Amino acid sequence: MKLEKNDIHTQNTSRSFAFELKARDASTRARLGEVHTPHGSFETPVFIPVGTRATVKGLTPEMVEQTGTKIILANTYHLYLRPGHELIGRHGGLHRFMNWPLPILTDSGGFQVYSLGVLRKLTEEGYAFQSHIDGSSHVMTPESCIAIQETLGSDIMMCLDECISYPAERRQVEASLALTIRWAKRCADARRSTSQALFGISQGGVHADLRKRCIEALAEMGFDGYALGGLSVGEPKELLYETVEFSALALPDDKPRYLMGVGTPEDILECVCHGVDMFDCVIPTRNARNGMLFTKKGKLVIKNARYRQDRNPLDDQCRCYTCRNFSRAYLRHLFIAREILAIVLNTIHNITFYATLMKGVREAVRGGTYETFRKAFLDTYQTGSEEEKGC
Amino acid sequence: MKLEKNDIHTQNTSRSFAFELKARDASTRARLGEVHTPHGSFETPVFIPVGTRATVKGLTPEMVEQTGTKIILANTYHLYLRPGHELIGRHGGLHRFMNWPLPILTDSGGFQVYSLGVLRKLTEEGYAFQSHIDGSSHVMTPESCIAIQETLGSDIMMCLDECISYPAERRQVEASLALTIRWAKRCADARRSTSQALFGISQGGVHADLRKRCIEALAEMGFDGYALGGLSVGEPKELLYETVEFSALALPDDKPRYLMGVGTPEDILECVCHGVDMFDCVIPTRNARNGMLFTKKGKLVIKNARYRQDRNPLDDQCRCYTCRNFSRAYLRHLFIAREILAIVLNTIHNITFYATLMKGVREAVRGGTYETFRKAFLDTYQTGSEEEKGC
Repeated sequence: MKLEKNDIHTQNTSRSFAFELKARDASTRARLGEVHTPHGSFETPVFIPVGTRATVKGLTPEMVEQTGTKIILANTYHLYLRPGHELIGRHGGLHRFMNWPLPILTDSGGFQVYSLGVLRKLTEEGYAFQSHIDGSSHVMTPESCIAIQETLGSDIMMCLDECISYPAERRQVEASLALTIRWAKRCADARRSTSQALFGISQGGVHADLRKRCIEALAEMGFDGYALGGLSVGEPKELLYETVEFSALALPDDKPRYLMGVGTPEDILECVCHGVDMFDCVIPTRNARNGMLFTKKGKLVIKNARYRQDRNPLDDQCRCYTCRNFSRAYLRHLFIAREILAIVLNTIHNITFYATLMKGVREAVRGGTYETFRKAFLDTYQTGSEEEKGC
Repeated sequence: MKLEKNDIHTQNTSRSFAFELKARDASTRARLGEVHTPHGSFETPVFIPVGTRATVKGLTPEMVEQTGTKIILANTYHLYLRPGHELIGRHGGLHRFMNWPLPILTDSGGFQVYSLGVLRKLTEEGYAFQSHIDGSSHVMTPESCIAIQETLGSDIMMCLDECISYPAERRQVEASLALTIRWAKRCADARRSTSQALFGISQGGVHADLRKRCIEALAEMGFDGYALGGLSVGEPKELLYETVEFSALALPDDKPRYLMGVGTPEDILECVCHGVDMFDCVIPTRNARNGMLFTKKGKLVIKNARYRQDRNPLDDQCRCYTCRNFSRAYLRHLFIAREILAIVLNTIHNITFYATLMKGVREAVRGGTYETFRKAFLDTYQTGSEEEKGC
């Protein structure tokens, strides 16, 4: 696939955005791609760390970049409420406001309305919700959602969707995805910026036919990329994996596929097999703050007494700032003493772990040996995890 | 003064420590010096940021170094309780444990017993106190205090002293300084390390004769440097300044003079006049965490609504990472949202402000123009402060 293909510009695609498919794995549907944006390019499969309120918690942008991270996610809902998208717009946009020079993806805010439980009323028009900060009343429509993201100036915008709980009745799921499709059309129509990409979000729960129906309707509209939404909301792992598999098969091959809110290293490795290109999740950053650290040999709970005197780095194969400079004993001390530096160093490590994992994934796909890579990784990771759990 | 003078080694001085007096100001008693330690040298007057629990809160050692900081302070009391000095000793000492390659000064722990209110019993032998963490019982004697600091491996150790409240009866102050002197002798006798410097601490409240008596007794014992303790504990500013003035006159000229726990930029500039060489204080770091930032034009309270849209850096003359990369509006957003990065960026700025202030002080003393420098600094700083306060 060549870049020129993306030059055919339709109403719903960006002139500045392109997805290049560079290689396919030999024995799985894993693919190696490259996404081009006005703030630089990144290879896929990629993991996107979360920087909810215009900051990846605890890290300077310089530190985030040093982890190998090429794109971050910011939350439209949070930034709309505080400090306000208009303030950020007057600052020249989110990149300048937070001093992050590389690509930014903004979500639509729909998931926050769902997950923070601030929804007051859902109508055809949009969401009426209350701020989780001060209780003030707000309305988010597909049109305002796009306007906010255009003001923020992210490289990849997301359509407003309705995310429903799991389990949900089929009728409810059907109604919800119909609304999501109508909203996607309104998002596409509302869009003014040609420099920002816009991704459609498919809903449809864990129902193959509903997912397919939604994806076809979205593909008809011609977005820059497609996300799978409404997953990782409580469904069993097998259903998540199945849904990703049949959804990915239905998605356009020449556009990036983004699985929202997923996940653990195991989840990512599984979903890469099905041809997912982009992932985001709070796990590496949130777990870092809770002292749960990722290593090649599995998860490590730093407060554990066994690390009290441990002079080894978290992961002896890791080249992050934390592993190059500090022992487990020091990190345990910082965590137990509730020192801020614990969060900083743990987050550097966990984000580096994810960035390094994805680099390994891409190299394996490039070499056509993804399945071998995945098996070797999981062998070490899961055996090690058991060992850690046993203590 | 030449380094060779320090080569005359007595029981109470270190072979690896030296103080070189390099210049004297023309119209004040301010002096420019250089302190040599096994972990490098630093010029004086110097400000020492506080890294209580083996971390300057929120900053990596790399960040601390980038602020221009050349020496930090760690608290013996805190490290003794958690993670324990022996654990740190087995790690190869505090420098390796926290990955700080430059000089470290450790206090004696006496001030914490006083200020944290954990004292259970004070005897000739030492302090019996309860841990502020878990209530466990401990004893700190002059001998154990030195043993702990030797295990930590700091470059500058402090004698155990008794710090009393202000105001206190003269009789009480007298008894207290007599104990401090007896303890200083025991500290000197207990000392084994020849690579670590040991400073005596003078007490005596705000009484000129008592300070003088204490200083003479300590000078007799021949320490590597001398500190003024028991100040900045509630006495009026004028009394602090007076006490520093007459105490500094009594202190040996050829050794560094360290004013513990002081202070604001104004305090430091005043006490440099009297010939103080070293300062430490929690103000720049603690205030950073509370959103109080130092600029050439005075103090700035970042949560103030006037900074909501302010695209300027905190201080347009500052070259710190924070001022080079972020606006007041972004810093206000982070602070209001209680983001960890607010603490990181604010602390970088405030420590840089202090390091830059001291650099200016040293350049002025070197040029013999300290009084002019001080006046110019305070003119801008205090006028600006008024402006900030007025909002």
